[in-house]
Amino acid sequence: MTQPQNLRVVLASRPVGRPKATDFRVERVPVPEPADGQLLLEVQTLSLDPYMRWRVSDEKSYATPMEIGDVMVGGTIARVHTSRHPDWREGDIVLSSAGWQRYALSDGTGLRRLDPANAPPSTALGVLGMPGLTAYVGLLNIGQPKPGENVVVAAASGAVGSVVGQIARIKGARVVGIAGGPEKCAFVKEELGFDVVVDHHAPDFAQKLAEACPDGIDVYFENVSGHVWDAVLPLLNDFARVPVCGLIANYNDGPADRSGPDRLPATMREILSRRITMKGFIVFDFPKEQEDEFLNVAGQWIREGKLRWREDVVEGLENAPEALIGLLEGKNFGKLVVRVGD
Amino acid sequence: MTQPQNLRVVLASRPVGRPKATDFRVERVPVPEPADGQLLLEVQTLSLDPYMRWRVSDEKSYATPMEIGDVMVGGTIARVHTSRHPDWREGDIVLSSAGWQRYALSDGTGLRRLDPANAPPSTALGVLGMPGLTAYVGLLNIGQPKPGENVVVAAASGAVGSVVGQIARIKGARVVGIAGGPEKCAFVKEELGFDVVVDHHAPDFAQKLAEACPDGIDVYFENVSGHVWDAVLPLLNDFARVPVCGLIANYNDGPADRSGPDRLPATMREILSRRITMKGFIVFDFPKEQEDEFLNVAGQWIREGKLRWREDVVEGLENAPEALIGLLEGKNFGKLVVRVGD
Repeated sequence: MTQPQNLRVVLASRPVGRPKATDFRVERVPVPEPADGQLLLEVQTLSLDPYMRWRVSDEKSYATPMEIGDVMVGGTIARVHTSRHPDWREGDIVLSSAGWQRYALSDGTGLRRLDPANAPPSTALGVLGMPGLTAYVGLLNIGQPKPGENVVVAAASGAVGSVVGQIARIKGARVVGIAGGPEKCAFVKEELGFDVVVDHHAPDFAQKLAEACPDGIDVYFENVSGHVWDAVLPLLNDFARVPVCGLIANYNDGPADRSGPDRLPATMREILSRRITMKGFIVFDFPKEQEDEFLNVAGQWIREGKLRWREDVVEGLENAPEALIGLLEGKNFGKLVVRVGD
Repeated sequence: MTQPQNLRVVLASRPVGRPKATDFRVERVPVPEPADGQLLLEVQTLSLDPYMRWRVSDEKSYATPMEIGDVMVGGTIARVHTSRHPDWREGDIVLSSAGWQRYALSDGTGLRRLDPANAPPSTALGVLGMPGLTAYVGLLNIGQPKPGENVVVAAASGAVGSVVGQIARIKGARVVGIAGGPEKCAFVKEELGFDVVVDHHAPDFAQKLAEACPDGIDVYFENVSGHVWDAVLPLLNDFARVPVCGLIANYNDGPADRSGPDRLPATMREILSRRITMKGFIVFDFPKEQEDEFLNVAGQWIREGKLRWREDVVEGLENAPEALIGLLEGKNFGKLVVRVGD
């Protein structure tokens, strides 16, 4: 039997500003052999997420930066190809962190077995995975929307924003989504059922957002920053809550993009005069029990048709770099994943 | 009997940037006559506080802007000169909001009788008044310092900052004060007993602050902003709390002072990656019960010698405008009050 080759994508150089295709390198290497207690994973689906831009940067952040030459990190759905571990057997489908590669070794740590009869496995990378949990803990623990309050969600068609808005609706809030372009806006309004949607590409976006929020904003789920934040800021109500989950508009910025004007004083002034709470968070800040609760509750919402999602599937691992570059510019439409297998 | 004249200071024009003496006007008018149910207050001491800069501006804030020609607002200690109100009698000393004038009418609403035997009445404008309560609720409700944590306080010799730091010490935190100039720094270290003090006038201030905080910053009590914030930001620890109480460095800014660079992205990035909580507040956001608790607890700390204060006394109401202008530039040393009487 000829052993198949492993295809993998490594970090070739640290991106400066917008990542380039040449910041990544596709390599072909032998497939590793599992030792006793190990298993060989065959990746089926790779998740692409905005946090990856942070991991390839050497700026200080919540995670250790990747080194040049490292296999790109990422959540994956994989099939157990070969098992020399008593708890796992060939054919098991598992949520894993195999990264941008076709085959990976594992000792079982951090794997979760998925039952394809329950939900499509790739949902464990999206609506029932890290993005869904991020939406759940950020909105409920920090945003704390009350019935009738006005919740604004940016990147509303994306993996996190789409879940934030739907949970806020379930909790009785009035939800305004922000998305880029007519197709995404139609999806957010018609498929996801947000109350109102505003297109941030519109030249009069700030005015349109103000019109969409006649009673102001009580919760703004921040995963964008940039010009969206500028439009949100003057609309925040007294005691508004702002979970800070992401800043995708800034991720590709270099120092030259920060020339001015200085937007900090206006933000600080509103924080003080409106008594706003801003709180940054990442999904790992919260107790494991809340993840179990989320999986139960969100599974139920899906069965009841209250929680919907959309996947944007890219074919082939060698196309992952371009797909990530596009994600950082809002080109994806729904949860972005890469189909890795044949 | 010749009725004495009332001296008062009114807002003559809205300041643009740094207030000028001509933005205020001193007027002499007849002393009003109390009607039935009213009393005439004779002001002894006027409190000058940074919030007054907001009240003379017409920018949106938590309070309604003053109108041109209005008597300047302000907390006062007054003596009841004449009472036609059953609950008050001539000679009572009361905490009141008579503003920048020698005499004012009152129907008793919002007055609090003070016992000069308990504490000097002017402490009700400072350590036992609004500034002290502001320090107490902001530090304990939002900052939540734990024993051994590092608390940094700007404007550490001022009315609020001095109390913040002393309470943080009482609660077992390590406290680093920031003050302007060697005299204030000596006072903060030696009289108030902060662990370390850093002079923000020093050319290497940011480096000195970093050296003073080898374990980072867990709580930063923000009442300054400006270049102090820039030095604090990179030192904030994971899960740091930032009660936003004031932004005195920005209060006199006009649009031209905000040319750049844009400091917002760096702040947002730290909020996210360090999972920082920033929360604006004003003293009136908290329940009345906490004020009663504060008066009890702080009174006890004063009797035990754990809570000290310093007053900066300006003589004569006609000097209040220059004193307020100086306060906004950090020229006061301790709680700034004006002695109004002869």
